[in-house]
Amino acid sequence: MKRLRILVIGGLAAGPSAAAKAARVNENAEVVLLEQTETVSYGLCEAPYAIAREIEDESRLVVYTPERLRTEKGVVVKTLHRAEKIVPVQHTVLVRDLHSGERTSYPYDKLIVAVGSSPRRLNVEGENGHNVFHVSHRDDTLNIIKYLDAEKPTNAVIIGGGYIGMEMSEALRRRGLEVTMLHRHRLPMAGLEEKTRERIVEELERNGVRFVTNARVDALLQNRSGKVVNVHTNKGSFEADIVILSLGVAPNVGLAKDARIRIGPTGAIATDQRQLTSVDGIYAAGDCCEVRNIVTGKPMYLPLATIASRQGWVAGENAAGGRAIFAGAIRAIAVRIFGLEVAQVGISSDEAREAGFDVVTQEVTVPSKVAIMPGAGRVTIKLIVDRRSKRVLGANLFGAEGITLRANTLGVAIQHKMTVDDVARFDMIYTPPFAPLWDPILIAANEARKKM
Amino acid sequence: MKRLRILVIGGLAAGPSAAAKAARVNENAEVVLLEQTETVSYGLCEAPYAIAREIEDESRLVVYTPERLRTEKGVVVKTLHRAEKIVPVQHTVLVRDLHSGERTSYPYDKLIVAVGSSPRRLNVEGENGHNVFHVSHRDDTLNIIKYLDAEKPTNAVIIGGGYIGMEMSEALRRRGLEVTMLHRHRLPMAGLEEKTRERIVEELERNGVRFVTNARVDALLQNRSGKVVNVHTNKGSFEADIVILSLGVAPNVGLAKDARIRIGPTGAIATDQRQLTSVDGIYAAGDCCEVRNIVTGKPMYLPLATIASRQGWVAGENAAGGRAIFAGAIRAIAVRIFGLEVAQVGISSDEAREAGFDVVTQEVTVPSKVAIMPGAGRVTIKLIVDRRSKRVLGANLFGAEGITLRANTLGVAIQHKMTVDDVARFDMIYTPPFAPLWDPILIAANEARKKM
Repeated sequence: MKRLRILVIGGLAAGPSAAAKAARVNENAEVVLLEQTETVSYGLCEAPYAIAREIEDESRLVVYTPERLRTEKGVVVKTLHRAEKIVPVQHTVLVRDLHSGERTSYPYDKLIVAVGSSPRRLNVEGENGHNVFHVSHRDDTLNIIKYLDAEKPTNAVIIGGGYIGMEMSEALRRRGLEVTMLHRHRLPMAGLEEKTRERIVEELERNGVRFVTNARVDALLQNRSGKVVNVHTNKGSFEADIVILSLGVAPNVGLAKDARIRIGPTGAIATDQRQLTSVDGIYAAGDCCEVRNIVTGKPMYLPLATIASRQGWVAGENAAGGRAIFAGAIRAIAVRIFGLEVAQVGISSDEAREAGFDVVTQEVTVPSKVAIMPGAGRVTIKLIVDRRSKRVLGANLFGAEGITLRANTLGVAIQHKMTVDDVARFDMIYTPPFAPLWDPILIAANEARKKM
Repeated sequence: MKRLRILVIGGLAAGPSAAAKAARVNENAEVVLLEQTETVSYGLCEAPYAIAREIEDESRLVVYTPERLRTEKGVVVKTLHRAEKIVPVQHTVLVRDLHSGERTSYPYDKLIVAVGSSPRRLNVEGENGHNVFHVSHRDDTLNIIKYLDAEKPTNAVIIGGGYIGMEMSEALRRRGLEVTMLHRHRLPMAGLEEKTRERIVEELERNGVRFVTNARVDALLQNRSGKVVNVHTNKGSFEADIVILSLGVAPNVGLAKDARIRIGPTGAIATDQRQLTSVDGIYAAGDCCEVRNIVTGKPMYLPLATIASRQGWVAGENAAGGRAIFAGAIRAIAVRIFGLEVAQVGISSDEAREAGFDVVTQEVTVPSKVAIMPGAGRVTIKLIVDRRSKRVLGANLFGAEGITLRANTLGVAIQHKMTVDDVARFDMIYTPPFAPLWDPILIAANEARKKM
């Protein structure tokens, strides 16, 4: 019997997840993973912590080596192999071996496209300076660490106030640099509620990060050796020894478009709940795909490792002959910003209004555990609720502790379309060292009920 | 118009909660709260932490003084007033003023019985020695602190290995005492899973608590001044300068029985979901009541402050003319035992079997956050699942951090009768400082699914 040939393009997160799952589900399948760089299965989300030296050994961010993927998971890994063209009618992919330069046609029975995303560019002069970095591949991590160690820069300019910008500002402050963050809007971290974003600015400034609002970067000024030394903006000019670009990412859809795979309204690859694309036999997973927002029922673009892993599993299982479903995501994210823990689950109040909900919000700031216990901090929870159905649509949480895990509890409520009444009736733990008599979640829900 | 007269008996937790709610819901009601001691609204759950001096000022455990309940909540509080008899046919309660000794008849339109529980006794000689303490009233806290400060005891014997025993063993170790815990069974903390209980013994011993299994106390040997100096057991005799009894509690049902209020199968007062007893116009709330177990649908006895507060709210609202429901509890509890955090949500595997479920359990021990991050600890989760319905019935969690809050997330799943498939699909946060790519909850649920 001919072996089922499953080809996976992309080796960062969704790809290895898909390949390993496919090999496990169907032991007779030949699973080949193509990756254009030298590294597969890399913990990019941990990069800022390696740069900060919280994780001392960067090599530990490599989750699986190609060798381990082969021996432990039964996946044939071809690094430095770039997929250049998918030919659906022939069920083949044209692949360039970047080492030899040769181009070969790889046949497939099932194809999984997991080609990820690319960092957005600034499109200004000087952007390719050798001390200008993205944080999107292992090479970036290694190059930043090498540069910090060798050049001992003093001034960092971070362009873009999203997640990576936040984590990098903390990492570089930990490394002793002066940090300036340039952001094109008044507040960082688009998608969070206004008060959360204001609190983040306060935390940045409290920790010595200069946050420059409404900054438009005009040019990165290089010296004669090609090093950027100054960032020119409408808000003045900023000295820089190192520049980090964190402008978000865009899905890699070139290969898919060429193959006539349908692109969704978000600009990423559209799939069904089985991660099947519009083209027979071709699945997609991870940052190149869109994902169904469980709260609104509509597609969104949300490039997260958790989603990539799950979509990878589902694509891998289905490509191998199984029947798995990825029902979507609510958006469940958190970040540490110095001493502040910030989380979001579900949709924002703006998104809720756009989606036609009759939005009521309720914010509380209350102790995270019994207030008279030593070390009791405060938690702020903002609930976003639909007045008509009483459904909890989203929440922002911030404070000193227990934010991420409490957000997960609210996440379950949001995912299962529960009402504020349901949440107010949660039977939650009271134990003085960890949780107060009335958990902040219960207080928020009880207060929100009064507005219905 | 005649004012509605609401009488509340009992001032610890459920009583003040009920009285305050009733006064808020019906501003025309006259709400009178009777309490036989001098203290109302006391944070008894914090007592071990005050004894340990983690909370330095014991008086902060008084949540509301009688004066504040009056001025802020509109409740007339009568301390040192003991309800001696409920006369339902007359809608009156006979009340003894413990100061004057006078007995008066108090009329009521609605009565709320919130008379709490009493600590179980050992029923051996020497039990009334002046250095033998329960932890069940404010006086106990004050007396223990006074005794520790004045007498500087060296050897403590704790009799009973339940929650209070655990907390007190840590408190007394923090105060520098040698601590021996005598327990009548092989393992402490009945109701938890065997491995959890074994881990607790390990933690006790690691922190210098001598845990004596299968110990039956025969007598507390007193010296001539009435001080207990030795505890005689079948496992030998133990020197003691202070003895703490933590044998659990029993509901106070004497008043209710005399009034022909129905007592449930658990031996506590039975109520409906509105907290109404079998006798017209009489509600009950808190430790004197039983509570519906949401998982089994059957009544259980679970004297917890969270349940008391909620039942109090519901009884208060309904007595005042509202329509509130208390649908029951899943059992959601946690305790800190030195460096160990332990939590239980839902029912145990033994209870599940007794209730007729086809029990499957799954235990995992995995990192609490990204394993390569500094300070990453381990979390053990044991899920108790019904094979037929795939419902999650209960869970034990223990580890160094994030146990209580993760238990709450599983608690929501249990309360809402979700399956392991539902839990495995939870969209949970991944952020290296706080949570791994696959949360321990997801790993446990995915592993459990494989056994279905």
